[in-house]
Amino acid sequence: MTRAIGVLIFPDFQLLDATGPIAVFDTAARECAAAPYPVRVMTDAPGPVISSSGVQLMAEHMSDDPLDTLIVAGGRGTREASVCLETLAFIRAVVARTRRIASVCTGAFILAAAGLLDGRRATTHWSRAAALARLYPQIHVEPDRIFIRDGAIWTSAGVTAGIDLALALVADDLGEAIAKRAAQQLVVYYRRPGGQSQFSALLQADRSGSRFSPVLGLGTRAIG
Amino acid sequence: MTRAIGVLIFPDFQLLDATGPIAVFDTAARECAAAPYPVRVMTDAPGPVISSSGVQLMAEHMSDDPLDTLIVAGGRGTREASVCLETLAFIRAVVARTRRIASVCTGAFILAAAGLLDGRRATTHWSRAAALARLYPQIHVEPDRIFIRDGAIWTSAGVTAGIDLALALVADDLGEAIAKRAAQQLVVYYRRPGGQSQFSALLQADRSGSRFSPVLGLGTRAIG
Repeated sequence: MTRAIGVLIFPDFQLLDATGPIAVFDTAARECAAAPYPVRVMTDAPGPVISSSGVQLMAEHMSDDPLDTLIVAGGRGTREASVCLETLAFIRAVVARTRRIASVCTGAFILAAAGLLDGRRATTHWSRAAALARLYPQIHVEPDRIFIRDGAIWTSAGVTAGIDLALALVADDLGEAIAKRAAQQLVVYYRRPGGQSQFSALLQADRSGSRFSPVLGLGTRAIG
Repeated sequence: MTRAIGVLIFPDFQLLDATGPIAVFDTAARECAAAPYPVRVMTDAPGPVISSSGVQLMAEHMSDDPLDTLIVAGGRGTREASVCLETLAFIRAVVARTRRIASVCTGAFILAAAGLLDGRRATTHWSRAAALARLYPQIHVEPDRIFIRDGAIWTSAGVTAGIDLALALVADDLGEAIAKRAAQQLVVYYRRPGGQSQFSALLQADRSGSRFSPVLGLGTRAIG
């Protein structure tokens, strides 16, 4: 059974948001020959797409071809991508014909702009969680998570959390044993303990109750 | 002070071996505006270079331009790259004009083929450590490490260990505080505890002394 993975990128995307999950699917497919994961990198203007590092990844034009899973990268270019009408229309159209949709890091802002996260639990990079909650009060933002699944929509914390998210997608498809073997090949932890607060001085401080607590939803005080 | 980073890739390279370190240098440069790290992806046939995942990264031709650091990726294409005369000549020439050279994952086989690891301590992906030790008995292979520095030559364990290695290079350049902030932005552990055996059933079993112990240098029995 083939599961086509689409990875959506845009100018100034975070290279690792896209390549972390790609490496997971490539590795999982080798660990389980019966389940190939062909990966297609997609964008609105095909060709080399520049990442925030200056390094370019090749991408094809977003198409109507069937996908099993769409993964939306984040990065500095998220701001522009989340107001790109073609990108938003593509994502809204994909929902109907795709089994699941995921975002990595600030890719959650693009899913939010497309309306996919309304009424759902979601996460994003720790440094942008408060902004996501403020911009979209209809989303239940949980800042201290590595990834969150809410039905068919998955969101991850910052950058390398996309690797954890992709491993969880593989586990959901092929079982824990294959996902764990892929993690071993990639030399990453399978199911990191705890949330992303351990990677953020801001979120760590916040656990004890700071002025960010109400917005982040982490503190012990009530909002308002 | 600008430190140009060259990242050497080849057909069938492991995408994450290259993009993990690239993301680290990009992030560190943003955390410390005084120290930009321009990244140049290099190969012997410039243009889009296909990774083992099928996804293509753009690369320029290897050049004589000065580099501060050269990082050599690994992956399935290592076998061909390590017998590519142009690649080996490039690496040997780079040694004289570059402050340090590093390999990620099985990129160590390319450095080994160029003679750079002779008499040195080095590591590679856990699944290939025994092969490296067998092919190059003059290298002191240490399989259970995340990365190793031996003078100007750095080598890392498998795939995502390239992120750990790049963070160590940044710490060496800009101090621990900047490297730690880059790790927080990327949502990765700074200085993972232990070696890569925790990611390998093979190496874990080996710790208790198996038939691989003499080759891997991990067991309690003497070699021979």
